[in-house]
Amino acid sequence: MSTGKPALLGSETTHDNGVPAASPGSFKMFHRVLDWITSDRMQLINVTDRINEIVRKSGIRDGLVHLQSLHTTTAVFINEWQDALLHDVRSFLEDMVSRERGWRHNDPEYSDCERQNADSHLRGMLMGQSLCLQVRNSAVLLGTWQSIILAEFDGPRSRSMSVQVSGI
Amino acid sequence: MSTGKPALLGSETTHDNGVPAASPGSFKMFHRVLDWITSDRMQLINVTDRINEIVRKSGIRDGLVHLQSLHTTTAVFINEWQDALLHDVRSFLEDMVSRERGWRHNDPEYSDCERQNADSHLRGMLMGQSLCLQVRNSAVLLGTWQSIILAEFDGPRSRSMSVQVSGI
Amino acid sequence: MSTGKPALLGSETTHDNGVPAASPGSFKMFHRVLDWITSDRMQLINVTDRINEIVRKSGIRDGLVHLQSLHTTTAVFINEWQDALLHDVRSFLEDMVSRERGWRHNDPEYSDCERQNADSHLRGMLMGQSLCLQVRNSAVLLGTWQSIILAEFDGPRSRSMSVQVSGI
Repeated sequence: MSTGKPALLGSETTHDNGVPAASPGSFKMFHRVLDWITSDRMQLINVTDRINEIVRKSGIRDGLVHLQSLHTTTAVFINEWQDALLHDVRSFLEDMVSRERGWRHNDPEYSDCERQNADSHLRGMLMGQSLCLQVRNSAVLLGTWQSIILAEFDGPRSRSMSVQVSGI
Repeated sequence: MSTGKPALLGSETTHDNGVPAASPGSFKMFHRVLDWITSDRMQLINVTDRINEIVRKSGIRDGLVHLQSLHTTTAVFINEWQDALLHDVRSFLEDMVSRERGWRHNDPEYSDCERQNADSHLRGMLMGQSLCLQVRNSAVLLGTWQSIILAEFDGPRSRSMSVQVSGI
Repeated sequence: MSTGKPALLGSETTHDNGVPAASPGSFKMFHRVLDWITSDRMQLINVTDRINEIVRKSGIRDGLVHLQSLHTTTAVFINEWQDALLHDVRSFLEDMVSRERGWRHNDPEYSDCERQNADSHLRGMLMGQSLCLQVRNSAVLLGTWQSIILAEFDGPRSRSMSVQVSGI
């Protein structure tokens, strides 16, 4: 590891998108709820296209899009959408949080939850249920290999994600 | 795991909250700092009610609420608030980041920190110290089982969280 | 662990910064892309000063600054910037996600990726590639020990981070 000073690639550069610096504008908000019915206990869903569709509909050109899955046993995060890697993601999360360990949440002596889903809660907590991304030129700003992934950790279930677009 | 196409529950639905699509409005901001004195080295605090109180006071109906704990050895995240599960959360975080391992941050040869709290730093980094959530109808948007949890990883201490509400 | 009621340090206090409660204002946005050329496979970069420079240039006094690294094999997070601790951060992330395990993403039978970087993807996913922080008084709001860290997990590479400041 180096923690030394990295090379600076020039000073910061403005990637021109037609918005002048610190442009004032009329602030707008737009909101939709997206729903899915999942089919497996652990399932990864690429939601990028549906988020972009909402951003386009919002009429907002520059701002933020905030995604919030409304369930503790889910998560929203970014990664490359490649089959081999998605297999590794699942395997990694299964190893990080054992399903079988004697979790108290799964023990009728301590818990009234009958779903035996302590692992699902811990995976959701670790990966997070909300994600905020930039909107540029009426689209979600994403790098070439970045996709937005909704993770189901306790399916099959009906799941909802609240999507809020704000900006100018 | 399936990464196949999940069933779409209709197209996205607008859960009407009186805000028309892309409603323009007068942008407002509101800010408060919340303080706590914690009592244990690892402690989980349900801050949902206090955040909602600030959102109500702000007079902002729709927007974002941003929470930021101002300490590296704390975290803010979402999970269900259930005693058995909270026990599992603590046990999971204690296992993920060993306290006893020979961390360099705890070694006087390398570090001037006398708190022996490398594990607290790593837990805080892993879980994150900021959280952004949606405000809808003058309340924090949360699913039925979602609570906002402030985690102390190096208490007892005095702790502050900056809360910013923005929107219309 | 205690999950009991912590002591409340008075009620919440307003740390006056000249902004009246729920102050309306003209909403503005500002955007820059920062670039780095990294030199090591895993490298931690303190980007706090460069982010603050952009916030100052934006002319925005109160609002949000959103950081988004545009690469799946990077991350952005907060921690104390101390050499001994940074050593521990690297060691922790290397242990959490093994490089050598038989990841499918690294296996030519399953994957067309030749970078052998499944571990980099998983570290990036775990730590997250976006971070939203508050802007107060024309600076990023950070606690005394909080620095903003860009993590390279698959260098050396050329890396870009999109920085958006919004507010009043």
